[in-house]
Amino acid sequence: MPAAKNAPNILISAAGSDGAWKKAMTERLPGAKIVTNDENYDPATIDYALFWKQPQGLIKTLSNLKAIFSLGAGVDHVVSSPSLPADLPVIRLEDAGMADQMVQYHLYAALHFMRDFDVYAAQQAKADWTQHPVARISRCRVGVMGLGALGAAVATALSNLGFTVSGWSRSMKAIDGITTYAGKETLPEFLGQSDILICLLPRTPETENVLESATLSFLPKGAAIINAARGAMINEADLLRALDTGHLRGAFLDVAVTEPLPESHPFWDHPKIRITPHIAAETRIEESVDQIAENIDRINRGDTPRGLVNRQTGY
Amino acid sequence: MPAAKNAPNILISAAGSDGAWKKAMTERLPGAKIVTNDENYDPATIDYALFWKQPQGLIKTLSNLKAIFSLGAGVDHVVSSPSLPADLPVIRLEDAGMADQMVQYHLYAALHFMRDFDVYAAQQAKADWTQHPVARISRCRVGVMGLGALGAAVATALSNLGFTVSGWSRSMKAIDGITTYAGKETLPEFLGQSDILICLLPRTPETENVLESATLSFLPKGAAIINAARGAMINEADLLRALDTGHLRGAFLDVAVTEPLPESHPFWDHPKIRITPHIAAETRIEESVDQIAENIDRINRGDTPRGLVNRQTGY
Repeated sequence: MPAAKNAPNILISAAGSDGAWKKAMTERLPGAKIVTNDENYDPATIDYALFWKQPQGLIKTLSNLKAIFSLGAGVDHVVSSPSLPADLPVIRLEDAGMADQMVQYHLYAALHFMRDFDVYAAQQAKADWTQHPVARISRCRVGVMGLGALGAAVATALSNLGFTVSGWSRSMKAIDGITTYAGKETLPEFLGQSDILICLLPRTPETENVLESATLSFLPKGAAIINAARGAMINEADLLRALDTGHLRGAFLDVAVTEPLPESHPFWDHPKIRITPHIAAETRIEESVDQIAENIDRINRGDTPRGLVNRQTGY
Repeated sequence: MPAAKNAPNILISAAGSDGAWKKAMTERLPGAKIVTNDENYDPATIDYALFWKQPQGLIKTLSNLKAIFSLGAGVDHVVSSPSLPADLPVIRLEDAGMADQMVQYHLYAALHFMRDFDVYAAQQAKADWTQHPVARISRCRVGVMGLGALGAAVATALSNLGFTVSGWSRSMKAIDGITTYAGKETLPEFLGQSDILICLLPRTPETENVLESATLSFLPKGAAIINAARGAMINEADLLRALDTGHLRGAFLDVAVTEPLPESHPFWDHPKIRITPHIAAETRIEESVDQIAENIDRINRGDTPRGLVNRQTGY
């Protein structure tokens, strides 16, 4: 027997935050029956699954699933599952409080290079008071790869502060005050004018390894890279080589191919790398449960949910 | 013989930047006779002096001076001179490209604490991937001391980003979106609600040492301090004590009592201190010569120049 429309059965598997999500969803949808994956439940009764890094093999047990909600901006952890039915709706969170956090992170990381805070931190360690001229912010060109909800917010904030900002995406986007590029053939030109390159692409088979020796070589000498998207977008060995040859000035990273970053990884003590432990933007539970509840309503009404993933492009 | 009004005699003494100022002033005022202090000139013929850290004793040789222009936002290096005639106009630069730079510096420094970049830099040194919850920016209260052109710009920018901002000044100011306090008696209340305290006060006898053990103790436990104004505003020994007892979380400093900071100074390797070599905002020569030329015009017309220092308050 399927659950009543206003009393759906919901499964949560959220990598250590199960309790917080269950509490918030229960308050938002008091009529729903909500279980976490460590509780007893009949997989065939589950209508909706809320997933962040769910266990392998879990999806295929849920035979009557109507949709999967990713509990983050990325959906790579869901769509990469080989047992995901081709026609099952996968829904990502849109913004959900993450855009503001991404703006804060990227303001800091971009100013880190533009205002020489990397240079001055190294000088502090040597008790060196040498002053350098302050660059004009309008002469610092920032390129943002990926112009979804997060990339567009970051590009706009940096442009408003005075940076000269351009953006690149798979398909053409228009954003006030930003020069935009689209498609692979424009990548050399886009990268060639990016003094600071920000990666906010979705992870898909197409974007994996997009920054490797050839594409990194298109960046101007002395460029810096900021990556708070997914570690898989950058070839880590190629990045280290570009830093060590002096082609790149520095990298400000929130993500890595292997997380947590292994203790022996060369990123930790590289003098040109600042790394943070995947904290650029955390999902805000309150905003998220509102989005999920509204999307369940839309599905019940037969409408298209917002944030529905295009299974062809993978985002 | 006094110089013609449209051909004033101008003396420049600008601590190592004499040549750049002379070139820019000569382009802006082709009719003027402009000398630097290392050239031969008759002190009695000088109409206007442009000073940044001028040599001691220079002012009293200039017997026919009409005004002194400070080549920075602060005028403490001029008004502290014992030989300065009481009725000689002293004129400061207003903004002159410095407000934007101050905004950049303080966005970075405030986010440094609010987004735990200080904590993550320390963790990186230990290869520690521990994640901490992201604070809500609206719950982070920033207090800005000093609401002149620079303080007001910084307060507004931080408020626009989402911080909860208050401001304190000697006399009451009104700024959109900012709670303002005025006068010494409100200092304990203002400091008591400042999680991040920004000092952008002018240096005067009244503001020297304003942050010392008693005032620092009003700050909430775990507060951070940002000072890009003048080193003399903070008692350095008291600051170190407040950091070492754990009352303060950290300090982000662009200035010190003695500059360049001596090699043996404890600020250099203190784990809670980030220090930069007085580079938060440099005077932009192009914008400045415009202001100075327009003020010389105003004086010639008998109007009050903009940025005229009140010799009672010292700013």
